[in-house]
Amino acid sequence: MKTTTDLNMVNAYVPGRADVGPATAAMIARRDALLGPAYRLMYERPLHIVRGEGAWLIDPQGRRYLDAYNNVTSLGHCHPSVAEAICRQVQTLATNTRYLHDTILELAERLLASVPGTGLAHLMLTCTGSEANDLAYRIAKVRTGGTGVIVTETAYHGITDAVSKFSPSLGVSVDLGAHVRLVPAPRLYHAEGSDLAERFTRDVEAAIADLRRHGIKPAALIVDSLFTSDGILPGPAGFLKGAVDAIKRAGGLFIADEVQPGFGRTGEHLWGFQRHGVVPDIVTMGKPMGNGQPIAGLLATADALAEFGKSSRYFNTFAGNTVSCAAALAVLDTIERDRLVQHAAKVGKILRDGIAALAGRHEAIGDVRDAGLFVGVELVRDRASRAPDRGLTSQVVNRMRDKGVLISACAMGHNVLKIRPPLVLSADQAGQVITALDEALGEAQSTD
Amino acid sequence: MKTTTDLNMVNAYVPGRADVGPATAAMIARRDALLGPAYRLMYERPLHIVRGEGAWLIDPQGRRYLDAYNNVTSLGHCHPSVAEAICRQVQTLATNTRYLHDTILELAERLLASVPGTGLAHLMLTCTGSEANDLAYRIAKVRTGGTGVIVTETAYHGITDAVSKFSPSLGVSVDLGAHVRLVPAPRLYHAEGSDLAERFTRDVEAAIADLRRHGIKPAALIVDSLFTSDGILPGPAGFLKGAVDAIKRAGGLFIADEVQPGFGRTGEHLWGFQRHGVVPDIVTMGKPMGNGQPIAGLLATADALAEFGKSSRYFNTFAGNTVSCAAALAVLDTIERDRLVQHAAKVGKILRDGIAALAGRHEAIGDVRDAGLFVGVELVRDRASRAPDRGLTSQVVNRMRDKGVLISACAMGHNVLKIRPPLVLSADQAGQVITALDEALGEAQSTD
Repeated sequence: MKTTTDLNMVNAYVPGRADVGPATAAMIARRDALLGPAYRLMYERPLHIVRGEGAWLIDPQGRRYLDAYNNVTSLGHCHPSVAEAICRQVQTLATNTRYLHDTILELAERLLASVPGTGLAHLMLTCTGSEANDLAYRIAKVRTGGTGVIVTETAYHGITDAVSKFSPSLGVSVDLGAHVRLVPAPRLYHAEGSDLAERFTRDVEAAIADLRRHGIKPAALIVDSLFTSDGILPGPAGFLKGAVDAIKRAGGLFIADEVQPGFGRTGEHLWGFQRHGVVPDIVTMGKPMGNGQPIAGLLATADALAEFGKSSRYFNTFAGNTVSCAAALAVLDTIERDRLVQHAAKVGKILRDGIAALAGRHEAIGDVRDAGLFVGVELVRDRASRAPDRGLTSQVVNRMRDKGVLISACAMGHNVLKIRPPLVLSADQAGQVITALDEALGEAQSTD
Repeated sequence: MKTTTDLNMVNAYVPGRADVGPATAAMIARRDALLGPAYRLMYERPLHIVRGEGAWLIDPQGRRYLDAYNNVTSLGHCHPSVAEAICRQVQTLATNTRYLHDTILELAERLLASVPGTGLAHLMLTCTGSEANDLAYRIAKVRTGGTGVIVTETAYHGITDAVSKFSPSLGVSVDLGAHVRLVPAPRLYHAEGSDLAERFTRDVEAAIADLRRHGIKPAALIVDSLFTSDGILPGPAGFLKGAVDAIKRAGGLFIADEVQPGFGRTGEHLWGFQRHGVVPDIVTMGKPMGNGQPIAGLLATADALAEFGKSSRYFNTFAGNTVSCAAALAVLDTIERDRLVQHAAKVGKILRDGIAALAGRHEAIGDVRDAGLFVGVELVRDRASRAPDRGLTSQVVNRMRDKGVLISACAMGHNVLKIRPPLVLSADQAGQVITALDEALGEAQSTD
């Protein structure tokens, strides 16, 4: 019964596909009974995790898994500076934005300092990336008077009612809105012989025209600046510019969704959009912002927010609470103090080069691309056709899990390995990822 | 420029109305510049808070305010059991529902045990009450094939795009959805000579008929089971039943929003709906669930969730993380161990009786109503007309703040004192609230 749905989720656990053992089977049954049918697990043999430290997740038997996937705990699991900030603040004060407190103002100053010269002027806080994108959409509608949204074909922006309507990666059984248009993902690997920037601009312009033809005024172009659900599409740097100009010309806003690319992951700047030389009207952020503490938000220009601020007061009970703000400040401090952006660039290059070198031995590796510590490996049936090898991808992900290295997959063809380790990954640990991938590719076989 | 908007928010800070002093003025200016125009503060003279303990909030000068308003920190500010649970878990593991972990399953078992015999079978977790109501609405749409929503006239259910469309208390400049119908709040105090239950049932039936007349299929009746934004309307117990039957007959779901009434506040049960002898299809919860840690969620029947679970996988990165679940378990443990439901009933009665006794001295007190530690005091220009005294209400709230006791106000007429202290309020502290209210009523004068 779940099969159809799960086929829409890359790397979902599908009951019966592998022997998970009696303890795990019992826990899954208990979980299904308690949490109901909408929850999903990862891997053919789901993991029961009881402890985390640094880049490691640990199961009840003490087996350690190298976590090359969770970018929430981007500083490593249970980072002591963040844990300490949370512990201290939770014993001092945990309250909301209807009172004055310093922590949120410091956080706003720090985040706004990361986007000099952009016109981004205000911070608003939410608890989740979904809420941040939902709020960005509300703001865009008030600012533009439009409702139309343009996203890429396998985009994921979140799970509120409004945002799920422009998150096509949730699968075909979650309806897109009538006001939503999809554009092809800017896949350089499949764009041979064409100018990617020109092509993407043309696609966005066509979507704008189609919205208008249906009487729908464009409100926003929203893109994950690394196109992570679409297959991790970092370049060439600058290709976004024409599309951003097009949506602005049409009176819409450009919203950069930095929930996945943000907080130094690209190894260049704090934010992914900065590599493209474009200026968003709104930047949304989330996942690694509190290294696990639920905090997310957005930066917006004064122009984008002016009208919304007049008509719509914003209060989100938990958002901007002193504890979450203290966690976020500790994250920013740690990124700076430990020079993690530079570290991500350095170890990201080791990881990418090591994987690229495997291409000599493994024909299935069609393309390796990266920005810092976000690496995508596109697996194909053969390099001439570049046809996706979904079955092989699933096998590689699951064999690596069995070898103790956690990654996942993405893209419309479910054939791009998604490698997203914590920013603190060491060169040694990068080597372990490469070795496990090498072995898994050697053992796995195409079933497509 | 802000005036119109702020008039829509009860007890908002309005610049220039009172002298806030140079330090506070500077902090407000800094905050406005950083957070932009959509944020609001409370009180004529906003509070800068640096520490909390028990029922107290403390400012930089060490002045202590008795907090009779924040029901997030329902066990008291910085409750040691919750702080300890968070500190322990944040150093052990903070990860998500794509892995198996025990904490979320224990939490589900505990919460489901609080609703025996209702058919509520599954727990789903979110980070905020807004997300919980947003998810409930998505589930209701999939289950019913409808989109229509019925809420009370001054209801507040949250701030996502979808939920703000059925939260009329956000004010007239936030549009309601075309699929939303408002019904009058069930105000016993203003319903003399009529049967409240019959009247509320008839209003809901009329709203259902009007939705259908416009070709809109009803999806849900959503009510805060204490109607807290509508003025705190606890009784008579049982009056909800006819309306619930009506929405179910029409094929819609009944959603009980327990974000404010839940977790023992009514002094009777864990949930507000239980006093009405009705069975919701979905129960949403939030605010006090983690005593400040961002956690919220919903309980749903298997029938309500079945279709949604097939079509729509649900993953909310931070929701159900081990730290938030540990906080919620500590909250439930504390409520049980310290018998806080019984305590809320006992101290609630002291508070209510003490305030009711003030009515002999203060003509403005039109009505005093409560459920446990949620007390509403309706202030009127005279007892014959029962006309709301908004100006007096604002003065009372602000004078009490100046005397060091924090409450707020609610209702369409902005004339109901909203008194919502932590469940751990002592009898002495209840006495302090009563004394401050007595003095404030003696000093304040009607300006309406």
